[in-house]
Amino acid sequence: MEYSKIYKDTLLNDVLPFWERNSVDTVQGGYFTCLDRNGKVYDTDKFVWLQGRQVWTFSMLYNHLEQRDSWLKIAKCGADFLKDKAMDSKGNFYFSLTQEGKPLVQPYNIFSDCFAAMAFSQYAKAYGNDEFRLLAKKTYLNILNRKDNPKGIYEKSTGERSWKNFALPMILSNLVLELEDVLNQEEIEKTLDFSIDEVMNVFLQNDSGLIYENVLQNGTLHDSFEGRLLNPGHGIEAMWFMIDIGARRNDKKLIRTATDTVVRILEHSWDPIYGGVFYFMDAKGHPTQQLEWDQKLWWVHLETLVALAKAYEQTGSEIIWAWYQKVHDYAWSHFPDPENGEWYGYLNRQGEPLLSLKGGKWKGCFHVPRAMYQCWKTFERIEKNRSDKTGTLKNCT
Amino acid sequence: MEYSKIYKDTLLNDVLPFWERNSVDTVQGGYFTCLDRNGKVYDTDKFVWLQGRQVWTFSMLYNHLEQRDSWLKIAKCGADFLKDKAMDSKGNFYFSLTQEGKPLVQPYNIFSDCFAAMAFSQYAKAYGNDEFRLLAKKTYLNILNRKDNPKGIYEKSTGERSWKNFALPMILSNLVLELEDVLNQEEIEKTLDFSIDEVMNVFLQNDSGLIYENVLQNGTLHDSFEGRLLNPGHGIEAMWFMIDIGARRNDKKLIRTATDTVVRILEHSWDPIYGGVFYFMDAKGHPTQQLEWDQKLWWVHLETLVALAKAYEQTGSEIIWAWYQKVHDYAWSHFPDPENGEWYGYLNRQGEPLLSLKGGKWKGCFHVPRAMYQCWKTFERIEKNRSDKTGTLKNCT
Repeated sequence: MEYSKIYKDTLLNDVLPFWERNSVDTVQGGYFTCLDRNGKVYDTDKFVWLQGRQVWTFSMLYNHLEQRDSWLKIAKCGADFLKDKAMDSKGNFYFSLTQEGKPLVQPYNIFSDCFAAMAFSQYAKAYGNDEFRLLAKKTYLNILNRKDNPKGIYEKSTGERSWKNFALPMILSNLVLELEDVLNQEEIEKTLDFSIDEVMNVFLQNDSGLIYENVLQNGTLHDSFEGRLLNPGHGIEAMWFMIDIGARRNDKKLIRTATDTVVRILEHSWDPIYGGVFYFMDAKGHPTQQLEWDQKLWWVHLETLVALAKAYEQTGSEIIWAWYQKVHDYAWSHFPDPENGEWYGYLNRQGEPLLSLKGGKWKGCFHVPRAMYQCWKTFERIEKNRSDKTGTLKNCT
Repeated sequence: MEYSKIYKDTLLNDVLPFWERNSVDTVQGGYFTCLDRNGKVYDTDKFVWLQGRQVWTFSMLYNHLEQRDSWLKIAKCGADFLKDKAMDSKGNFYFSLTQEGKPLVQPYNIFSDCFAAMAFSQYAKAYGNDEFRLLAKKTYLNILNRKDNPKGIYEKSTGERSWKNFALPMILSNLVLELEDVLNQEEIEKTLDFSIDEVMNVFLQNDSGLIYENVLQNGTLHDSFEGRLLNPGHGIEAMWFMIDIGARRNDKKLIRTATDTVVRILEHSWDPIYGGVFYFMDAKGHPTQQLEWDQKLWWVHLETLVALAKAYEQTGSEIIWAWYQKVHDYAWSHFPDPENGEWYGYLNRQGEPLLSLKGGKWKGCFHVPRAMYQCWKTFERIEKNRSDKTGTLKNCT
């Protein structure tokens, strides 16, 4: 079977039905994300990251794939809940809520806000609604305001060693493109310039070819747990954002550096014994703080498949294709649960399910369907291109 | 070899020399705790929990085992550093410092303070110093002041679901006995009453016989990630604090419930496949938030050995003895590193070292030497008692 078909089938016949069937809270609004192996709800708390991400997923599919009423209805169920329940009086987004939407955990960082902005923007487009468009813009501007002190009063660091974290420029590079209907072109290009510069010139290290998770405010490395931390999945995910931006700008150099970096990170982070990409590593090979460092996570492998598919589309490189096949074989033989649907989220180093959940506090309806969609569309182009070429060759002979 | 000898030998000839040789920062004061497999320093940041705990260990050994000048000197190196560098202007203790003692992470909870108070009290006794005695008392009073809102301004919970955490009453039950020279008898007995009541009547559940890590402020259980969380090592450690208090008060009922609870927790938390005690569990068997749930940690197994040795001393129960041997065999065959000394801290579920460190951000010179000392002394009494009985029997025949 062609790769595009595998991803399309899995998205439409396995992953989306799993979430449509199990996650929608028709009573209180919003979504249940804590779903066990069979899709049964085992916890009813609502985590704002995942509420926003699921609104985004169903709105994006409605906008880009097919205008299914059922998808819009699911998006509406979460968008209204987010708008009505998830914001404090200053427009900051809480981290978590009870099932009914009472705030549980304060807005102690800005990632809830990032996913809410993405959600509102796609949903506004799907629903054709100015209130949500405005809310997306307002939320985005609030993120920019908070970006130099994202944790606000909850910041526990004294400032003695002041960090820049990779997540923010990485997310911004994706977020502004999600907000294309909401922001003006100048704002978008300015933020893209900023993000590309931070990601490729500050966090990506020339000598090692690796991306560090934290650097000091002045951009230098620091020899401490935080300063030595590598998060291979983060780096690889950011590289497909960069490939997309490179394609948009026709920036061949950006595409080349990004694809080289995907390969470099994989060479450094592939488990030589059991296969799969490690979750965390220490740049100097010291023990990590993260006890979960050797685990194999669903999103790391899905983002890697997306990055490699896009890298292959852009370069046709055989090295990249070999890596694609290696990661494909690992991911598709370890993560899916054909019996009950969807993908396991957390495997131990040996590749066995560590937790039986299909959704939880951090895994919702986002990485699996987004990657399925991205890989499907990328392989569709690759396969079309290949068959066009075959056609051309045939015509030539 | 008698068990008492194994523990004595390991403490005096392996564990203490490892820390004496590798951890003392003779230049800046305080201790390095990030030590690799061989004892080499791989990170120089100083974590206040572990600074306090190491001062305590060397002071306690000086006070109870042998007045070695070298031990007092090591204790002084940390006690002065703690006093001079680790407190903010209000007497709260930072979480971490640079090697030179500049504050890195704010006093966002009160456990640094608990270990500092223990350290100052034992050190004041060893060094015969009133300034440290006063500091111990002041720190203790500050802990009591902060105990209803231990995270202060860093509390991220909205208060919608307000928790009591098991760690505080558990630590207090041990801490007041550490401060016996500093506090008056009434204060000690009052705090012991409070701690026993919280631990045995609030956190220990009658129906399951298990100890929950979090209950609501009104003492009831709550069906959420936090509310379902079990931390078997915590529960077992608290039970040996209760056995000690029971012995002190000649409270047979407390001793009996505590020893029963050790067995109950072990029955529930022993890994039936690979052996060892799980790190975290969900009371309803749902997936935990903690990705490290299935790992086998040094402190969990050491605290279990202490609890079982004390439980056996008090009860002579064969069930407890069978558990002691099972845990002894697991722990002594998996954690020690005979080649380089000390114990590994973190094993994966299968029992292989997950991190090669001997010390880190959370593992310092504390659980291993304390457990070695406690087991040594407990087995010395058990063995003496047994040989007295044998002697008596001999005399009788």
